[in-house]
Amino acid sequence: MSPTTLPARQLTVDLGPRSYDILIGSGILAELGTALQSRFRGQRLAVVSNETVAPLYLAQTRSALEQAGYRVTPIILPDGETYKNWTTLQRIFDTLIENRFERGDGLLALGGGVIGDMTGFAAACHQRGVPFIQVPTTLLAQVDASVGGKTGINHALGKNLIGAFHQPCLVLMDATTLTTLPHRERLAGLAEVIKYGVIWDAELFARLETQLAEILAATAEPVIDLLYRCCAIKAAVVAMDEREQGTRALLNFGHTFGHAIESLTGYDGWLHGEAVAAGMVVAARLAARIGLCPPEDAERLHTLIRRAGLPTRLPARPVEHYLEAMIHDKKVEAGKIRFVLPTRIGHAVVRADLTTADLQAVLADHMGDP
Amino acid sequence: MSPTTLPARQLTVDLGPRSYDILIGSGILAELGTALQSRFRGQRLAVVSNETVAPLYLAQTRSALEQAGYRVTPIILPDGETYKNWTTLQRIFDTLIENRFERGDGLLALGGGVIGDMTGFAAACHQRGVPFIQVPTTLLAQVDASVGGKTGINHALGKNLIGAFHQPCLVLMDATTLTTLPHRERLAGLAEVIKYGVIWDAELFARLETQLAEILAATAEPVIDLLYRCCAIKAAVVAMDEREQGTRALLNFGHTFGHAIESLTGYDGWLHGEAVAAGMVVAARLAARIGLCPPEDAERLHTLIRRAGLPTRLPARPVEHYLEAMIHDKKVEAGKIRFVLPTRIGHAVVRADLTTADLQAVLADHMGDP
Repeated sequence: MSPTTLPARQLTVDLGPRSYDILIGSGILAELGTALQSRFRGQRLAVVSNETVAPLYLAQTRSALEQAGYRVTPIILPDGETYKNWTTLQRIFDTLIENRFERGDGLLALGGGVIGDMTGFAAACHQRGVPFIQVPTTLLAQVDASVGGKTGINHALGKNLIGAFHQPCLVLMDATTLTTLPHRERLAGLAEVIKYGVIWDAELFARLETQLAEILAATAEPVIDLLYRCCAIKAAVVAMDEREQGTRALLNFGHTFGHAIESLTGYDGWLHGEAVAAGMVVAARLAARIGLCPPEDAERLHTLIRRAGLPTRLPARPVEHYLEAMIHDKKVEAGKIRFVLPTRIGHAVVRADLTTADLQAVLADHMGDP
Repeated sequence: MSPTTLPARQLTVDLGPRSYDILIGSGILAELGTALQSRFRGQRLAVVSNETVAPLYLAQTRSALEQAGYRVTPIILPDGETYKNWTTLQRIFDTLIENRFERGDGLLALGGGVIGDMTGFAAACHQRGVPFIQVPTTLLAQVDASVGGKTGINHALGKNLIGAFHQPCLVLMDATTLTTLPHRERLAGLAEVIKYGVIWDAELFARLETQLAEILAATAEPVIDLLYRCCAIKAAVVAMDEREQGTRALLNFGHTFGHAIESLTGYDGWLHGEAVAAGMVVAARLAARIGLCPPEDAERLHTLIRRAGLPTRLPARPVEHYLEAMIHDKKVEAGKIRFVLPTRIGHAVVRADLTTADLQAVLADHMGDP
């Protein structure tokens, strides 16, 4: 039952000398080696994956690479956000160094956002920077984490606090990998899709509202379309603002509250996308509360997230714990937490002038069982 | 007995948007805060130093910064190359995060090459990159390590294998800090000065031959002159080739053998400059052996290094251990070790075509007691 290969759709992230392509298709993992030949000049690749993804896709990936003449060294890490730390990263460095990887050799991330972030950061630091390739296998990594060059690991006090901007030389996503993705993770990825709708693309948001069931069920053309649309937005935003001096910050919609949830629950209770989903609901309600966003738009978002089966409320913790967790976020400036807030469905802004009273109220309103 | 303040001499490392100035003078540490005001827009600085340098220069540095309105958080690390690792780096991250350092806040390295490399790497990775400032207090860091943006830590299998290119926003060196530098470390720094003479500047080399004693004794004008000359070479080379695709590799003269010495002796027996000194002698002899360099030029280098009181021979280890250590070096390409070899005093090239027989012979010739 091998999937039909469709011609890959292609996007370019335009970053001058650091530009790269995104290939999106169904069954295109088999073309990985060929796709790399014009884009990566090394001879060896360390394929970094985890214990869940490797049994599913490592053999196929390896064979595609070896057929194109690359030598492959697999590095299999434990699965989960709790392992996104220096100890796990060391295993990558140790393998690269013991196997005498050279400056021209590369790293390939085969997995979700955690694998992509860690592999990218290892590539950024190994010998002060070597090439890397993203082959995202989760919806979340495909629509978001694999594009744009943000890499890193977590610190006990906050997510992604240690990292680097390091752009890949190719992102290749095969929608057929989504057939093995657990439903819960698919929903978590959908949260980032919804995010693009809120901050950038009202038409995408409307499509999600009308075709939610079809999108959740589909694996071929409709999903490829969705991946393409999200990656096109991400590529445009990153090309405008690679290092997040401005526009790129909009992509953090829902993430300030979301990171606080992840930090307070120790990174293992909630999936990133689930935390972002609840975070978006709270952020939209905050925007409505201060009169920035029509309450009915906040309500539309709440409804869509609820219909998608994603969480709309925060785990119950003292409000001060949330405020404390958010102050450690990277988006803090001059002691003020910066929030991405929608002004309507399809448009968002960054605001740093929220009062503690408003934050406390909106946190309290959305906490625990309704 | 406060030293006379002389007008600082200024150089610029021309790297487009990442350009920065090098200020060189005597007694100019007091002007650090003023010098930063036009070059660094943050409000807080973590001053990273070590247990040896902090008691000598932290108070003065802190006061210069606070007078200019900066808030200072000192981070004092243990002293020595053995601590140039992730465990020590974690202390920097922990302090920054616990003290809520933000993206606009900076790190300032006050110390030698180890402090500069670690502080720079921490600045490269903290929140994916924050500003940093170099205030080198050793001759080696002043003429070499503080300029050019190479940062990193060691791995058990090799030096600086994990790191980043991250340029400082200012390098300020006060020659009076050399008055407290142990003689042995001053000599180690001189090795890098000699390096510039061999690879780039025959006149500098000749001046070292004729004025060695004066240069070793002097602290004011003659040393400032020397710092300026070395930094001017380094700035020119880095501006030509920031990421070491070509010319910059010449600065590694003596370092392939040198890193092997450091790796084989566990980073604590030999100072970096001492290892480079012996490494340069061996590299020059290798160049003479293959007919690339006149034997009399290799001999001039040997003589100068001996007269300076620096080591000219390698510690006795099996030859294979040296070959094994060198193959882990970052400069390996397609399995071939790349050596920087002089063609004469004042000029060098990169060669990757050395035979194992030549390497074995030259290693054996220069090992252990003569």
